[in-house]
Amino acid sequence: MKLTILGCHSATPQENAHTTSQVLEVKGHLFLIDCGEGTQIQMRKQKVKFSKIKNIFISHLHGDHFYGLVGLISTLRLLGRTADLHIYGPKGIKEVLTLQLKLADSWTNFNLFFHELEEKESILIFEDDKLKVYTIPLDHRVYTNGFLFEEKSGLRRLEEEKLKNYNIPHYYFQSLKLGKDLVLDDGTIIQNDWVTLNPKPSKRYAFCSDTAYNESLLPLIEGVDLLYHESTFLDAHENLAEKTKHSTAVQAAKIAKLAKVKRLVLGHFSSRYRDNSRFLNEAAPFFDSVELAADGKIFDI
Amino acid sequence: MKLTILGCHSATPQENAHTTSQVLEVKGHLFLIDCGEGTQIQMRKQKVKFSKIKNIFISHLHGDHFYGLVGLISTLRLLGRTADLHIYGPKGIKEVLTLQLKLADSWTNFNLFFHELEEKESILIFEDDKLKVYTIPLDHRVYTNGFLFEEKSGLRRLEEEKLKNYNIPHYYFQSLKLGKDLVLDDGTIIQNDWVTLNPKPSKRYAFCSDTAYNESLLPLIEGVDLLYHESTFLDAHENLAEKTKHSTAVQAAKIAKLAKVKRLVLGHFSSRYRDNSRFLNEAAPFFDSVELAADGKIFDI
Repeated sequence: MKLTILGCHSATPQENAHTTSQVLEVKGHLFLIDCGEGTQIQMRKQKVKFSKIKNIFISHLHGDHFYGLVGLISTLRLLGRTADLHIYGPKGIKEVLTLQLKLADSWTNFNLFFHELEEKESILIFEDDKLKVYTIPLDHRVYTNGFLFEEKSGLRRLEEEKLKNYNIPHYYFQSLKLGKDLVLDDGTIIQNDWVTLNPKPSKRYAFCSDTAYNESLLPLIEGVDLLYHESTFLDAHENLAEKTKHSTAVQAAKIAKLAKVKRLVLGHFSSRYRDNSRFLNEAAPFFDSVELAADGKIFDI
Repeated sequence: MKLTILGCHSATPQENAHTTSQVLEVKGHLFLIDCGEGTQIQMRKQKVKFSKIKNIFISHLHGDHFYGLVGLISTLRLLGRTADLHIYGPKGIKEVLTLQLKLADSWTNFNLFFHELEEKESILIFEDDKLKVYTIPLDHRVYTNGFLFEEKSGLRRLEEEKLKNYNIPHYYFQSLKLGKDLVLDDGTIIQNDWVTLNPKPSKRYAFCSDTAYNESLLPLIEGVDLLYHESTFLDAHENLAEKTKHSTAVQAAKIAKLAKVKRLVLGHFSSRYRDNSRFLNEAAPFFDSVELAADGKIFDI
């Protein structure tokens, strides 16, 4: 998995502070997460291939997570896209996008599938042969979901030397990769784990923005390889965080610690702060493995 | 009048090619014309004071003229605006903006007045003590208006020397500025034009985008000081211009010539062309006083 931050700032887009959007690459497939105003410009800057986006996940319908979506869809139309596009987001997203396309008399020449969400519990919303995506219900001023991206286990890995030792013909290899034991033509039984290794561990990425401090998300994100958790405010503005249902850097670090995640990335910074390193300084005492998001930054998972 | 081009490119916003938006300054008041995605970022870059925008004119509901408006309104809300905001645009604009604000549960704390247009003839849509604004019906794929900004005549200008010669007390000055003749206390009659000059000529600016070549707009824009006319395509793509109801640079120049305007500014360039100077080269043989728009360029009228 490779995560590219297109924007990680809250509220209002500015020349050097873009609102929320990310691209997650999973085995060659691109998934777009949130789409603030100007996301399409950021995609071009980061050389994200527009045609590779097939699924877009929108956390909530605040402008800084969503107002770039209709423009992106219009651009896909102008680029001559024909492939289906799936959009996952809160109920209402279909109505507002459809209305905008209708008023512009600009219907897409590709199929637009809306998967509207209103469930309050975590649900599976996407599955293919490589990946599952679950919602992570968050606690914000409007209905909001984070998203958990979970790679499926890969195939078992063959150990070449051992295959030779047991003289195993190549036409058994696929069965071995799938975890099956073998009975050779001469009746010999080969247990799978004699000649294979466990699949590479599958990775999990959790996106949690926007949300107040909320321990009920711990079971959903436990042990993930990377957690992106919003930290709109510094500790001095904890009261504002509470009032607006956002988090502080310390609160994000505490969630990461309690959930025993491997790495924490902070983002959704308020523009009131000039120096984002203060978020890092405040979080670090509570959780070791913490980094800051930045527009254009890439995280390998 | 001072015109600042925020964006003058068609279709899709790119890092160095912003979609349509302009700010017209008239005697200290700012009027925003169109609002493509990312306009608020361009406004910051050009140091346009957000609080000075009180009236926004939207030509039509294609995304490249309109998708930045909801984000701008959201930002005005976050900036704590309390002053009224007036929005003039095609019917439907109220529904779509209201829906977006509703879904974000982000009602403005200032009054938002929508002036929805569906008239097919030119009408007066704004008037204050300094300015009148009329619609200019255009010929595009969806209902579209250009806008004519017409300064009102100022006051007559006093000639100080002559006032002294006639010994005219200062409490008559305002009457003279308003064009009235005087009868002095001793019965002397002073004709206004003995001691005043005509007001400075009032300026007119016409914004015409998007439109096919359309001679029916000639009477509306005749003799304007500045005409911004779209020229999406070069002559080689005249067929595309016809199909999509846009204009070529040559067509824009012909309109300028027929309307006897003082200056022509070309804009709404298709991103297919690398070198915009070709628009100038094609237009110049048909109309002398032609210039190219560019993002961030300022025209004094």
